[in-house]
Parts: sequence; C-alpha cells; structure tokens
Amino acid sequence: MMRTRPLKVALLGCGVVGSEVARIMTTHADDLAARIGAPVELAGVAVRRPDKVREGIDPALITTDATALVKRGDLDVVIEVIGGIEPARTLITTAFAHGASVVSANKALLAKDGSALHAAAVEHGQDLYYEAAVAGAIPLLRPLRESLAGDHVHRVLGIVNGTTNFILDKMDSTGAGYQEALDEATALGYAEADPTADVEGFDAAAKAAILAGIAFHTRVGIDDVHREGMTEVTAADFASARAMGCTIKLLAICERGADGSSVSARVHPAMLPLSHPLAGVREAYNAVFVESEAAGRLMFYGPGAGGAPTASAVLGDLVAVCRNRLAGATGPGESAYAGLTVSGMGDVVTRYHISLDVADKPGVLAQVATVFAEQGVSIDTVRQQGRGDGSGEASLVVVTHRAPDAALSSTVEALRKLDTVRGVASIMRVEGE
Amino acid sequence: MMRTRPLKVALLGCGVVGSEVARIMTTHADDLAARIGAPVELAGVAVRRPDKVREGIDPALITTDATALVKRGDLDVVIEVIGGIEPARTLITTAFAHGASVVSANKALLAKDGSALHAAAVEHGQDLYYEAAVAGAIPLLRPLRESLAGDHVHRVLGIVNGTTNFILDKMDSTGAGYQEALDEATALGYAEADPTADVEGFDAAAKAAILAGIAFHTRVGIDDVHREGMTEVTAADFASARAMGCTIKLLAICERGADGSSVSARVHPAMLPLSHPLAGVREAYNAVFVESEAAGRLMFYGPGAGGAPTASAVLGDLVAVCRNRLAGATGPGESAYAGLTVSGMGDVVTRYHISLDVADKPGVLAQVATVFAEQGVSIDTVRQQGRGDGSGEASLVVVTHRAPDAALSSTVEALRKLDTVRGVASIMRVEGE
Repeated sequence: MMRTRPLKVALLGCGVVGSEVARIMTTHADDLAARIGAPVELAGVAVRRPDKVREGIDPALITTDATALVKRGDLDVVIEVIGGIEPARTLITTAFAHGASVVSANKALLAKDGSALHAAAVEHGQDLYYEAAVAGAIPLLRPLRESLAGDHVHRVLGIVNGTTNFILDKMDSTGAGYQEALDEATALGYAEADPTADVEGFDAAAKAAILAGIAFHTRVGIDDVHREGMTEVTAADFASARAMGCTIKLLAICERGADGSSVSARVHPAMLPLSHPLAGVREAYNAVFVESEAAGRLMFYGPGAGGAPTASAVLGDLVAVCRNRLAGATGPGESAYAGLTVSGMGDVVTRYHISLDVADKPGVLAQVATVFAEQGVSIDTVRQQGRGDGSGEASLVVVTHRAPDAALSSTVEALRKLDTVRGVASIMRVEGE
Repeated sequence: MMRTRPLKVALLGCGVVGSEVARIMTTHADDLAARIGAPVELAGVAVRRPDKVREGIDPALITTDATALVKRGDLDVVIEVIGGIEPARTLITTAFAHGASVVSANKALLAKDGSALHAAAVEHGQDLYYEAAVAGAIPLLRPLRESLAGDHVHRVLGIVNGTTNFILDKMDSTGAGYQEALDEATALGYAEADPTADVEGFDAAAKAAILAGIAFHTRVGIDDVHREGMTEVTAADFASARAMGCTIKLLAICERGADGSSVSARVHPAMLPLSHPLAGVREAYNAVFVESEAAGRLMFYGPGAGGAPTASAVLGDLVAVCRNRLAGATGPGESAYAGLTVSGMGDVVTRYHISLDVADKPGVLAQVATVFAEQGVSIDTVRQQGRGDGSGEASLVVVTHRAPDAALSSTVEALRKLDTVRGVASIMRVEGE
C-alpha cells in the first residue's frame, strides 16, 4: 500500500551530518519509501554558504533563508542539523507552527530547552525526535524510552564523548600525558581546534541531562548536571588506577538516589574496574550501560559521532516520524510524570580514591584515619608508601567505602588542615562496582 | 490526559516469565499507567496447573481455559508466554480475531510462522510485538526495525544463546572439556535437563531467522538457517583458537551476499578474534553485533534469558502496544518488501581453520597445498608440527582466506582421499574480521 504523494522533507544544515543525510535519502530512496510506505522528497536545504558545491544535491533546493523554508507550510518533516541554540530553536518552533514534525541532532538545545520544545510539538500536534543527539548512531533514546518503558531504570553510566574517550584510551594504553594524547587526538581529527566543549565535559553534560530526563521520566536541565572535565587526569592517576585493577573513563552518570524519590546527573572522570563492560570501550567509541530492575545490566555500544553514524540515527527518526504521519498519530513525547527531585552533587553517594602527600613519620595514618572517621567516611583500603628520596614524605592512598560527596568534601577540607598532610595529590571517584 | 477505563490484558502462561510480568504489572501499576496514558488491568491468566499458589495474583483471574479467555472480546492485549507451536499459534490468531493485539516471547513460533501471524495481525488491525523472543531483555528488534530503519544492515553477528555461551566461556577460561562444562551449566541452572535445543543450536537458529528477516526486510524461515551445534568443540579447539589470538563462540550470523541481492543465516561455532567486542561476552550474557552502512559497528549487550529480563522486554512491548491502541494506530508490522534470495550454506563466504593429522614426511605440505589450490581456496597461514611421539604423524593447521563454504567442503573431501592425510581433526570457521 504505497502512497504516491511524497512526504516533503527540509534539511537545515548541510555539513558533515546533513550532507550524509541528503546522500542516503537519494541513494536509498527506494528502501526508505518501502519502509515508510510513501516516498520522501528533499524539498529544500538551508545552508550558510550557498556557493559551496554539494554533490548529489539539486542546486535549486539550496537556500540561505532557513526561516522562509520552514514557513513553507507544505513540509512534513524538518531535519535540524545546524546545532547550537539559535537560530535552531526558533526554526524548530516555527516548523511546528507551520505543520511540520522535527528530527534534530541538537544535544545542546535539547538539554537546555527540551521541555519547551516538546510542549511546542504537542501544541501543534507534531513529533520531535532526536536519537542522534546522544551517542550518535547508537540506538539509545528509543530503547530507553520504548523498550524499557515497562521497566524501572536505576542507573545509566555512559561514555558519551568520543574525543575524551580517545584521549583517555591513549593515556591508558601508551602512558602518555594529557597534552600529548590531546595533540594526537587533534592531529587525527578526533578533537576540535578548541576542545573545550569535549574535554571540560560540556558535551557529555548535555547528553547526561537528556538521558536522565528520559530514564527517570523527570525534567533534568543542563544546570542540574554536575560537571567536571578531564584535563587534570594524569599519567600518575592511570598508574593508581591500574594498581586497583581499574582504568579511567569520563563518565556521564544518571542515577536514582537510595530512597527512589530523587535522581542525580553528573559528568566527571572516574576509575572503573577493568572487568566492567565499559572499561573495554576503546578509541573514540561510545557506550552506555544501563542498570534496571527487571532487565538487569544492558550495554549499547557504537560510534558516538561522525557524519554517517549520526545520519543513520537521523534517518531512523525520519522513518519513524513519517510512519507516524501516515498513521495520523504522533510518537511518545516527553515523559516527565515522575517529577523526581534532582539532587545536588553533595547528596551523591559513591566511592573515592584519594592520594595524599604526607610526612613520612609515625602517627600520620592514625591522624588521617581519624579525620575520615569524624566525617563519617568509612575507609576500605589504605596503601602507604615512603618515597625513599630523603624528602621525608610518603604517599598515602585511601580508597573509601560509599559515602556522600559532601562528606568527602569536608573530609578533604579537614585533611588539608593537618600539618602532616603536605598536599592532596588527587581525588577520583570509583564507579561501576 | 489519563484515560480512566483500563486497558485489559490477558496473560497466557504463568511460569518464570509470566509470573514476573504479573508481578511488575502489579507493583509498577502507577508507572505503567503514566507511561501508557491509561491504567492496565490484568483481566485473566491462563495456566495449566490452576492449583499452584501464585503470589500476588487474584485467584479469580486464574483459568485453565485459554481459548475462552482469548475469545472474551473485551481484551486489549494478550501476552503469550507459553512457548512452543501449539496451542500458542491458535491462541494468538484467535486473540487477533477477537480484537486483541498480541505480545509474545515465542521465538520458535515466530521463526516458523512469523509471516502468517503478521498477516493475521494486519487482517484484524492488531499489533504483534515480540522483542522478548530474541536475546531476552536486550532491546534489539526495536532498534533494528526502527532505529536502523534509515540504514542498510550488512551483517548481524550474535551470541543469542546464554547456555552455550556459558559452556564455551567455561571451556575457555578453565580448560574444561565440553561435558564437564555442560555439567557445571546444568548444576547451576544455566542448562536444562535436556540441553538439545541449546547445544545443537535450534534455539539460536530460530533467533537467527527472526533477526535476518528484520535486518534484511526479507522473509527468512527457520529452515533457511544452516545450523551446527557446539557439542563437538574440544579443549584442543580452544588451544588452537588461542594460538590464533581467538576464542570460540556459538554465533548466529545473518549477512548479505557480496552482490547485495542475497542473504544468508547460519548458526555454528566459530573462532572470533579476542579483539572483537563479542569475544568479551562472558558467562550466560548475550550480545548482538550489527554492522551497517552508515551507523558502522554497533553492539547490544545484556541478559538473554531469565524471568525478570524477559518480562522487561514483554512489558516494553505491552506499553508500546497500549500506546498504539490509545492512538488508534498500529506499529510497524512485518517488512519483507526486499524479498532477497536466501542463499544456502554453500554460497556463504568466510574463513576456515582446519587441523589435519598427516604423515610426518617431506612433500606432505606440497600435496595438501595443491588440493587447496585445485579447489580455489587460498591459504593464509600454515603451521606444521611434528608430534615427537614416534608415531610418524604431524599436525598441520591451515587457515584460509575467504572462500565459499562449498569450495571448502570439496577441499576437505579431497584432503580425506590423500594417503598422507590420516584424518581431519577439526574444521572451524573464523569470523569477525
């Protein structure tokens, strides 16, 4: 039952992702038509540089007036792959108002204004899909939203930024320092000239907000996500991690509090046991580990970025939105019914690996242990090692049991006040156990 | 916008999976209602043994008359977790005819009669969902069918049977033989008293048929799947695998032929490089690796069986089917538009690891190499080793380049005719490269 009038699709942005979307829409037009039940037609492509040669795209479709394009009124779907907040946000809401559904890959916008955009979609009876916004090609939002719709997610633990995973993997496998590994990532095109969004965790934090919102049926904004970058991870940290049978990953962690009525979302580097499935995720790959009540431990793995992988996710959404349209229905929208409290970082409970430089003399361990006890942080293991360099200093590595982040912070503050503690060399959370 | 009239759900079967489904429907009723947009009510439970105590299920709902239950006419969804061909098939089609959609976990039935059941669903305007039929809790069919709907799948490589993965993992990690590992699996409850369906690959073959059908938009029946069990894998095979940097897994492999117009599906043990993401799948876990044109390499990992994990998949489908119902729509049904040819095993192209017992004298390697050349099978590496036991025998391990299975079979037949070849100790395919 093939409908012959094509569904009209506009493309906003024709860079790495957009050009792949256009290419696949052309080369696999027959497959898409068969899977949707109607042909899809590229009706317009909004670009910033109209003079650039775009192979396989009819020049007559190119326009610099994105606003006029989304206002045409005859569009079925608008694909937004511009990125950033504006003009993307206004173009999306304008598209809804003019009767089109939207497929977006825009994590920053969705993390910032997801609820408002969903509301606008509902107001105009349109769909808003954005599988490509998190973990590129990896089917993740649809499984979380639909496949696990009958389950109860406890925790989502994700490597959702390929650049930082590439850097950390290099540091782990070659012993390189951060700067050296970053330089290699830049040379190979895995890191941008300004890597801030990646290495400071902004990109991962946006994805964490989106994941937490979907996993816990609760609005989680980008400002709710505690964020620490990975620029201060050192080769020494990797040595410490290896001594514990761990590696170090930049993780996006979304989890329920112990009482079940609160959730938290955070991004920071963490030690992760080598036996954990995420520990084996190499190079620029992404993977998301989900722990839920009934399903248990699931992992989704794949390329988290790149033109073709991201286009795959965009086109999967395009097919879904087109099918919904032909059925006269819309897909599942925002689900925020649970309305759980979003905790601050102080309430997050996890384990810690703390390296201290201390005076190499008797009684230091007792002093340090007393501080931990006073703050209610229980110690799991301690490893003390004289430097043997005549400095009179030793290093003390403490791994704690689970404790609230606030308690750990007060512990560290108190430790810094001890005369015998010369410095806190590093503090790293230990996850995945 | 919560509808107050509940959706009525009947449960066929109340064993390990069914009782978990009923439990979650009760304990998480509020979550399910919020996610669906209407409450769901357990309207009846068909069982074989009505006298068994079933905690948390109102005894008034229990019936032994499954046929009468699915004919009630007021049901919205029937959940079939009986398994097997009959009476499951008749109950499902009866449910459709009486206005209910169906969620099933029945791989054997779907692999055998999936097309007919889909046709019956369409005829009556109902949904047929069966995420739980393949790889238990792992969201797999929905991602393949929906998330990758705009992509072009080349190959699906899966560990889809937990029992055999547990056995092979034990053999690999402990050096145990097949029987010893099977005994441990049985003692721990990972293998059934009669393990035939698992160890002979019947279970995996049913899943391969379902996966191939969805991945390639082509009808693939259970009889189209080439099936070899793993009962003949030996400790010596694992030693050979390790020497190649491989492990051995029972794989379900669905792939396109080189020309793109044919597909094949097969289940057999195979050597897999340790660097392949599937090689790290331990114990009874399942994982499915998907290679597609745009998305690249994806992997889905999780528990492949068990009451709660399977119930998670069933309930995800229940939520989807109920949402469709409230929207007055049905979800994507069977997609078989591509109608590709299903190749026999002879046309499958892969690599082979062959261990031969040969006479330990000059010229044998030349003879053997000639046979391979005559059959058009190109040799990648050869390793020759005298036994040193005075037997006058040596072992010869040949690893081939990619060749059609038929050519390999003729090669082996010709090798057996050589006087200098005392025996073919093992033949194993090498995948995942």
